[in-house]
Amino acid sequence: MNVNVNGRQLFFCSCFDISFVIPVLILFCSCHKLQESLLSSASGYSNYRGILNWCVVMLILSNARLFLENLIKYGILVDPIQVISLFLKDPYSWPALCLIIFSNVFIMAALYTERRLSVGTFGERLGTFLHLINLSTILCLPVATVLFVSSMTPVGAVFALAVYTILFLKLYSYKDVNRWCRDIRQARLAAVSRNMYYFIFAPTLCYELNFPRSPRIRKRFLLRRLFEMVFLMQLLVGLIQQWMVPTIQNSMKPFQDMDFSRMIERLLKLAVPNHLIWLIFFYWFFHSSMNFVAELMQFGDREFYRDWWNSETVTYFWANWNIPVHKWCLRHFYKPMLKRGVSKRVAQAAVFLVSAFFHEYLVSVPLKMFRLWAFMGMMVQVPLAWFVGQFLRGNYGNAAVWISLIIGQPIAVLMYVHDYYVLHVQGPSAG
Amino acid sequence: MNVNVNGRQLFFCSCFDISFVIPVLILFCSCHKLQESLLSSASGYSNYRGILNWCVVMLILSNARLFLENLIKYGILVDPIQVISLFLKDPYSWPALCLIIFSNVFIMAALYTERRLSVGTFGERLGTFLHLINLSTILCLPVATVLFVSSMTPVGAVFALAVYTILFLKLYSYKDVNRWCRDIRQARLAAVSRNMYYFIFAPTLCYELNFPRSPRIRKRFLLRRLFEMVFLMQLLVGLIQQWMVPTIQNSMKPFQDMDFSRMIERLLKLAVPNHLIWLIFFYWFFHSSMNFVAELMQFGDREFYRDWWNSETVTYFWANWNIPVHKWCLRHFYKPMLKRGVSKRVAQAAVFLVSAFFHEYLVSVPLKMFRLWAFMGMMVQVPLAWFVGQFLRGNYGNAAVWISLIIGQPIAVLMYVHDYYVLHVQGPSAG
Repeated sequence: MNVNVNGRQLFFCSCFDISFVIPVLILFCSCHKLQESLLSSASGYSNYRGILNWCVVMLILSNARLFLENLIKYGILVDPIQVISLFLKDPYSWPALCLIIFSNVFIMAALYTERRLSVGTFGERLGTFLHLINLSTILCLPVATVLFVSSMTPVGAVFALAVYTILFLKLYSYKDVNRWCRDIRQARLAAVSRNMYYFIFAPTLCYELNFPRSPRIRKRFLLRRLFEMVFLMQLLVGLIQQWMVPTIQNSMKPFQDMDFSRMIERLLKLAVPNHLIWLIFFYWFFHSSMNFVAELMQFGDREFYRDWWNSETVTYFWANWNIPVHKWCLRHFYKPMLKRGVSKRVAQAAVFLVSAFFHEYLVSVPLKMFRLWAFMGMMVQVPLAWFVGQFLRGNYGNAAVWISLIIGQPIAVLMYVHDYYVLHVQGPSAG
Repeated sequence: MNVNVNGRQLFFCSCFDISFVIPVLILFCSCHKLQESLLSSASGYSNYRGILNWCVVMLILSNARLFLENLIKYGILVDPIQVISLFLKDPYSWPALCLIIFSNVFIMAALYTERRLSVGTFGERLGTFLHLINLSTILCLPVATVLFVSSMTPVGAVFALAVYTILFLKLYSYKDVNRWCRDIRQARLAAVSRNMYYFIFAPTLCYELNFPRSPRIRKRFLLRRLFEMVFLMQLLVGLIQQWMVPTIQNSMKPFQDMDFSRMIERLLKLAVPNHLIWLIFFYWFFHSSMNFVAELMQFGDREFYRDWWNSETVTYFWANWNIPVHKWCLRHFYKPMLKRGVSKRVAQAAVFLVSAFFHEYLVSVPLKMFRLWAFMGMMVQVPLAWFVGQFLRGNYGNAAVWISLIIGQPIAVLMYVHDYYVLHVQGPSAG
């Protein structure tokens, strides 16, 4: 006799009372039911929140191993005194600092020109001419200093050039905004000179007559940012000395021998510390330091970055990871170009071109080596942005942006280091 | 004159028309507004979905590097022929296969005993006695064979022991269920013998008179699972030969020298391939293979695992990663104990004890080495479960479960390999 219970065929002898047996049977014996496995698509299951924890645990453990391997192999390489020697070659000559102090001359020149323009002593054309001379001197003077002053170290040079680049962008913005304001003929603004040094120190590149101000200085916030600045600075120096430098040194041989599989291996090995350092640097500079300065100056606009970590296109990344520069490019370069009838695509490419120029400027000059790797690294973003925008969506796009960040940077770093090594270490001995 | 617009102080000379200037000013000059940085807690921002992609990209790139490093260092070590030699020492002697074929005798013995019991020829006590003899022989015979037949390889032995362990659990369940059914005096079920071999091959350890059946064999599903079985098997063998074996071999020296920091480094290095292999094995065995067999036999209950990857406690992990064993333990060991008045805590510890016994059984016997590492590995789960349950919640609990999985296994693996190495490789030459 067959009985069907819950989709099962039950076979019984016919000699007993079914009505009694079935519930007991189910109570004792039934421990299976018709169902799919969770990982089968038919199950409709999709809760993999544990996987994120798994990723984090695996990353931490893998990197803990790398850290330990590094310590075993090299011992402790961190040396804070060595950091000073990166800035100073000759303790009686401080060319980078002198250069930075000298930059006040250009600030004064811009201020003077604007004052004359605002009262009408200088005409618009003379004013523009003087500004352009001032701005081009800002770009050229440090280059000349770096190339001709022998006591300038590469790290000191990067620092001085960065300050001059920021100054260039700020004074360019200052000139533009003042001209826009004069264009409204009636408006003779006395504000021109009142906040020049506030603007120079404020964490923004875009001049405004009056910046939004935060109501008060939050002391706890300030101290937390200060602590982060000090701690992360140490961490950065430590990571570079302990992890980055030995990895780069070990990469030289495969790159000289053009041993392709080892080159890829070294590149991937370098990618991890490089990326970590870049992430820490990002937080240190754009969150801790800028917020610290802003809090101290009661500067209200703290949007120094947006959610670039969720970028699904390369363009979104570049428009959101460095808001001060992005804002400057938009306001003083991209929009003025559009107004002059340049197409969006060309204007975008031009922005990348200018950005590529400054990247190259900040790398080539201090290394005294003109190789265009940084320039090309930036310019390759244009076709990359097109490719990712065209073919990859959502999480795939996001992953592509991450890969380009993680892999792209160490390629450029290795290129420069390789060339530097060939020039300065191998070159003289081979000659 | 001061004017307040959007929280800004605007300073003007008093000589012009404010009503005209303000909108133009805002249009041209205002590009800042009062706002917090996203990473400041004050911003209330919490969308970090890009971070998951970052984790995945970092994991893939890190492991790609390890893979490449491994290939450069060792070349290709994968050798399918070598796999055969793991099962066979002497091509004319197949002890593991003979042992597995011989297991039919025990199935027959159990069936015979139950038939006699069902018709009343054997009394309950005699039946239980015969079953216990049968079951203990199932556990002891393969041990004796492995220890005394010299042509048995460790891998062959593991395989045979696993089959016998499964058989033991199945026949234990078979005996229990039949007794429960007989306990309902009126029910003389003819079903006893009809599905014995169906039960033996079905992917479950719990006997039922009638299993739920799926309506039809889905051919595409079957082929997909078959493809996964074949492909993942190859992948597992490849990973073990190429990644696991060299890493273990490299770990021997630090473990002999008791070089602690290198031991940790080796342990973490081994953890990655070991964990990956375990994950692939999990999918291969619990999803592909079991679903394949179930589809072929139209076995309806496909719940071979639950969402253990989201486990927030150790107990949840053990109750959900291996459902056939969990179901068996619950039905034939844990619940009967509770019925006899044993407390929950003791019953749970007893389940871990039995599980620890079988883990040790499956490892020690094939290696002919009684070290209790696997036993201790399982028993340590009891205090670990208590600790995690007591102190860690949510994602922290989940991370702790992952860490115990990722780190715990390679510790046990290294212990056994170390002892095996000392006994078989170093021992004779030192003696």
